[in-house]
Amino acid sequence: MSAIAAKESYLHPLDPATAEEIEKATALIKQLFFGIPLHFKAAGLDEPPKRDLSAYLDAEHEGRPLPPLPRRVFVMWYIHRTPRLFEGVVDVTNNKVEQYQELPRDFHGPVDRAEMNEAAEVVMKDPNVRKEIQRLKIDDTTIVLDPWDFGVDGTETQERHTQVFMYIRNPENNDPDSCHYSFPLDFMVIVDLVAMKVKKILRLPLGVDQKTTEVFSDVPHRRTNLFEPEYTHRLQKNPPRTTMKPYQVIQPEGASFTVKGHLIEWEKFRFRVGFNWREGMTIHDVSFMGRKAFYRLSLSEMFVPYGDPRNPIYRKGAFDLGNVGAGVTANNLALGCDCLGVIKYLGGHVVGNDGAAVEKPNAICIHEVDQGIQWKHTNHRTKNATVVRKRQLVLQQIITVANYEYIFAWIFDQSGEITFETRATGILSTQPIDADAKVPWGTRVGDGVMAPYHQHIFNVRIDPAVGGPNNSFVYSDSVRMDWDEELNPLGTGYVTKETTIHRASSVQDSVADGRVFKIVNPNIENPVSKTPIGYKVVPIRSQMLLAQPGSWHWRRSEFCEAPMWVTRYQDRQLFPAGDYTNQSLGGTGIKSWTTHNPDPVVNEDIVVWHTFGFNHIPRVEDFPIMPAEIAQMHLKPYNFCNYNPTNDVPPSNQEFNKSVLYEDHQAASADLCCRNKL
Amino acid sequence: MSAIAAKESYLHPLDPATAEEIEKATALIKQLFFGIPLHFKAAGLDEPPKRDLSAYLDAEHEGRPLPPLPRRVFVMWYIHRTPRLFEGVVDVTNNKVEQYQELPRDFHGPVDRAEMNEAAEVVMKDPNVRKEIQRLKIDDTTIVLDPWDFGVDGTETQERHTQVFMYIRNPENNDPDSCHYSFPLDFMVIVDLVAMKVKKILRLPLGVDQKTTEVFSDVPHRRTNLFEPEYTHRLQKNPPRTTMKPYQVIQPEGASFTVKGHLIEWEKFRFRVGFNWREGMTIHDVSFMGRKAFYRLSLSEMFVPYGDPRNPIYRKGAFDLGNVGAGVTANNLALGCDCLGVIKYLGGHVVGNDGAAVEKPNAICIHEVDQGIQWKHTNHRTKNATVVRKRQLVLQQIITVANYEYIFAWIFDQSGEITFETRATGILSTQPIDADAKVPWGTRVGDGVMAPYHQHIFNVRIDPAVGGPNNSFVYSDSVRMDWDEELNPLGTGYVTKETTIHRASSVQDSVADGRVFKIVNPNIENPVSKTPIGYKVVPIRSQMLLAQPGSWHWRRSEFCEAPMWVTRYQDRQLFPAGDYTNQSLGGTGIKSWTTHNPDPVVNEDIVVWHTFGFNHIPRVEDFPIMPAEIAQMHLKPYNFCNYNPTNDVPPSNQEFNKSVLYEDHQAASADLCCRNKL
Repeated sequence: MSAIAAKESYLHPLDPATAEEIEKATALIKQLFFGIPLHFKAAGLDEPPKRDLSAYLDAEHEGRPLPPLPRRVFVMWYIHRTPRLFEGVVDVTNNKVEQYQELPRDFHGPVDRAEMNEAAEVVMKDPNVRKEIQRLKIDDTTIVLDPWDFGVDGTETQERHTQVFMYIRNPENNDPDSCHYSFPLDFMVIVDLVAMKVKKILRLPLGVDQKTTEVFSDVPHRRTNLFEPEYTHRLQKNPPRTTMKPYQVIQPEGASFTVKGHLIEWEKFRFRVGFNWREGMTIHDVSFMGRKAFYRLSLSEMFVPYGDPRNPIYRKGAFDLGNVGAGVTANNLALGCDCLGVIKYLGGHVVGNDGAAVEKPNAICIHEVDQGIQWKHTNHRTKNATVVRKRQLVLQQIITVANYEYIFAWIFDQSGEITFETRATGILSTQPIDADAKVPWGTRVGDGVMAPYHQHIFNVRIDPAVGGPNNSFVYSDSVRMDWDEELNPLGTGYVTKETTIHRASSVQDSVADGRVFKIVNPNIENPVSKTPIGYKVVPIRSQMLLAQPGSWHWRRSEFCEAPMWVTRYQDRQLFPAGDYTNQSLGGTGIKSWTTHNPDPVVNEDIVVWHTFGFNHIPRVEDFPIMPAEIAQMHLKPYNFCNYNPTNDVPPSNQEFNKSVLYEDHQAASADLCCRNKL
Repeated sequence: MSAIAAKESYLHPLDPATAEEIEKATALIKQLFFGIPLHFKAAGLDEPPKRDLSAYLDAEHEGRPLPPLPRRVFVMWYIHRTPRLFEGVVDVTNNKVEQYQELPRDFHGPVDRAEMNEAAEVVMKDPNVRKEIQRLKIDDTTIVLDPWDFGVDGTETQERHTQVFMYIRNPENNDPDSCHYSFPLDFMVIVDLVAMKVKKILRLPLGVDQKTTEVFSDVPHRRTNLFEPEYTHRLQKNPPRTTMKPYQVIQPEGASFTVKGHLIEWEKFRFRVGFNWREGMTIHDVSFMGRKAFYRLSLSEMFVPYGDPRNPIYRKGAFDLGNVGAGVTANNLALGCDCLGVIKYLGGHVVGNDGAAVEKPNAICIHEVDQGIQWKHTNHRTKNATVVRKRQLVLQQIITVANYEYIFAWIFDQSGEITFETRATGILSTQPIDADAKVPWGTRVGDGVMAPYHQHIFNVRIDPAVGGPNNSFVYSDSVRMDWDEELNPLGTGYVTKETTIHRASSVQDSVADGRVFKIVNPNIENPVSKTPIGYKVVPIRSQMLLAQPGSWHWRRSEFCEAPMWVTRYQDRQLFPAGDYTNQSLGGTGIKSWTTHNPDPVVNEDIVVWHTFGFNHIPRVEDFPIMPAEIAQMHLKPYNFCNYNPTNDVPPSNQEFNKSVLYEDHQAASADLCCRNKL
């Protein structure tokens, strides 16, 4: 056995693809396309089929010999400067390209930074763009370009494009870190990415309708306020506040979790963490109190459609996972900045255009938080109080997609609850607006700066294994009982009414009915409640897609139509807007699957998909940088355990927690002061 | 001027009533009723009329001489052992009973602990109760009584009652701190609180309908499991887990807030905290960045109706504020248990039955928390990242109402956001159930133990002063634009549609419309957005009351019908189920006010009321003690500021935060280990 093979034998089937594996895979593909220049778009672990992986995991849990499973890498590439797109799977254990195929011409791979930078250079050199710059009397060195993934209008669907929004740096300091979104220019540029040349230059509308474009003067926008806030403290005229005292999380005995490779154990939870170019962090093989709960948890997709109806803005609508990738855009997290306490970082690898592995260091941070009180009871008879704190384990990643940041976290709670938290922050994508204009689809957030309304619509894929592979999806409504002399004489009674979903489909929510969504295992009865064990899905209740039914936004974002979906598990069915979202035409997402294959989903291997969103009607307070908008989806054990799983958490006490009285601290400071004076 | 007067002159008009003030007030009332034994029920600050208080606060803010305002105490009392109930207001500055009145006989004061204890003694001595105890062959010393405020069935409405639920301690240890809710007895007792004697003994139903009562055997319930979990670690058979390492919040330079009396200043916020017997903690005179935002914020009421339709359980439905009081039941919070870090405690006073003041020490704790990331942006061009953490100020109180605990917190965020957080914890109120029975209105949470479904419905009273006293309440829906060749050619456009509420009324919510509720000041335009300044109310979206329209539960809990209400401000209009909720008959709450007085509410001094709830369908995991169920309502500045108010928070850095790498800690421990061995 070679040294490499020996090393590889240490990899778990769910460990992310290593740099060596990615490079081995791209090398094998390069061999196959010998002499043809390739542009690699994506590479990462191709997870084993569920049947194989389940057998492996069962053997692992039961301490049996592990069946051999080859490691596979998924790769996506173009023939350089052509529209020819390929995807394939390479068996890196046995060094062979297992399969590959060229994709239809309407399918487009994600954008990448190198390509976007090249497009930006092309824009700046274009003679007609130069005329626009001259018209505006601005210096090249002040210009900042924001190339975006392109939307779809139904024309030229086989061409690859980028749309480039134009800004300038803050003219007062011309600093590369100034907030250029405060200074939008009045034109944008569309670039053909295959020909790599400017295709179209478009003036932006500046008022309520298109006509205002015509009367546009020759300055980018008419600024009247002297004050334009900066988010970068280095550039701000006013120094940062000094009122905030340090707040440190000290864990004198270290963390309560252990990380071995990608296996994490913490407070009755055991699971693995994965990482890939598209979804970023993924969670696998979760068990709680020794019982299986989830096979795989992931953010599966997000769509950000904008509400400005005007040409050329109306195409603005990005699938940030499928078009770019949450692994590709993962931030390198820094100690003492992105989390507090004792922190474990995990990284991963993506692929460069040339096929070399690109490290994404510190892409995931793992740490504990204290989330207040888990439970308390005071016995008023004895005056004895018992209080237990709520400790959580947070796995966090942060992605930057041009202007926006998203902070995603899987949060594990001692109570068996798992939370997916989304924080939307970063900077609004802005457009210029006339001095006195207001528009009904946007907010003025600065002088001459308009931030259009937009939605951020996310989907979380929940592949459950509640007590085992076969589960059902039910919802339970609380329903008032009818008046009845004998059975409901005071009209106070209410009961729950359960509905089991029989076929793969979307499922509607209802606040008015107190609807509760549950994943249950009809094969295992809780001995206490005498009902099936389960996990509750507590949704984030939000408005669905606002674009018109039939519109391109609507056709492409199939998951954005309903808050809940259930499907029967299928290998490689991971992305509810389809595998290829960039300039997609629709018809390959979850609505298509469930319409064409309304599989039975009762007591089957099912997948539950939750769609939720922020409808971002910008506030002035969201500029120049946005305080995070936070939403949390929860998975809660529901008659999964036989009693409160936090029952044995030691009570909270001062010896453990070392809190300080406000007065004592003040006295101590005063004391210290005095001593210093002596 | 006497010494007392001089001391009193230091009290702010919003400071809670002091022990001296309460005792002065009850002494003056005792003089008035000389020779008649009184039973005091409640006493606390009678806040000045808004006109007077606003003038005072304006003078205070502007540094003008403060107008004199007498301190007043509200008092409620019975003539002892009679149904005669009185309320009055005592001017304790000028030593006079300003007004008092006897209330109609259908009005009842809250219950109190002394009275409940007396009722429990009466129950235990009653000869027919003794027969029931003999029937069950249990020892008096093991019995635990849970006297509850009484429900209403429309009969004998002028009599005062308590309903007493019966339990035994854990027979294995007979410990006073054992979880008696695991051992419910099969009968309950109703006590007449005026005559102070047992009125009725009732057997509880044990199956789906009443008939099962008849076949009930002579043991309380048929226990088959050996294991019955205890929440008190002292009593548990299994020792607490040892996996959780300490997590300490260290604030080496102390807290960032200052507390002077009841005035709190923190990170651009300035407000006062109040305390009274009924609402517990209240928040007053809130300004942010020097601009008025809220006049008064409070939890105004809560209702806990149970869904079990059977006699005699069908009366179970408690108004925990009006019937008992969040100040009266406030926990004495302990250092290192209920919060971490540097903590300031504030206490208050309520009244004893005899008119003496009763201290509620440490009823409110004030501390800071780090709530993750406030905002971040990574400039992909320069690779520079700026990240700012989200510091919050938490004012927390915890109340114990028999079996349940509620943790209420007002949370102030650097972004100008104010959150009201509710955590429901404690122990489920349980009933016995037959060995194999299941009921559609409850969950089996232990062997022979059933926890009925119930709702916890809360109302938060928001008295705004957004930029000044006159505000309007509007909601804004996001609405897709119609297809239009010219105005919406791709069908992507959407706009907001605002509806202003014109008359005092309830207001419905709509997730499907992306409804946003706003309190706006139509008199002040934000110079950036060119729209009125405002604060957004982000509701907790929940099911409303499930009891039948027309039922007593429904008639009494007027606020439980709609998630939002708006009224025109009126002095002393604080409680949306009416001032007297115990055994109330309805007709005195917010629905009655708005129906009888649909006041104009556009650009007026308005009050907004938000109703939200937990529909508690118990899980096995909620027993023997309940992991806190958490819900948060938010008030967010909405074009209130001219830019992101957290813009000047210093960036997060390691020097300030002192985080530790997981590996470094492990190395340090190993190192320490080695050194210890030497």
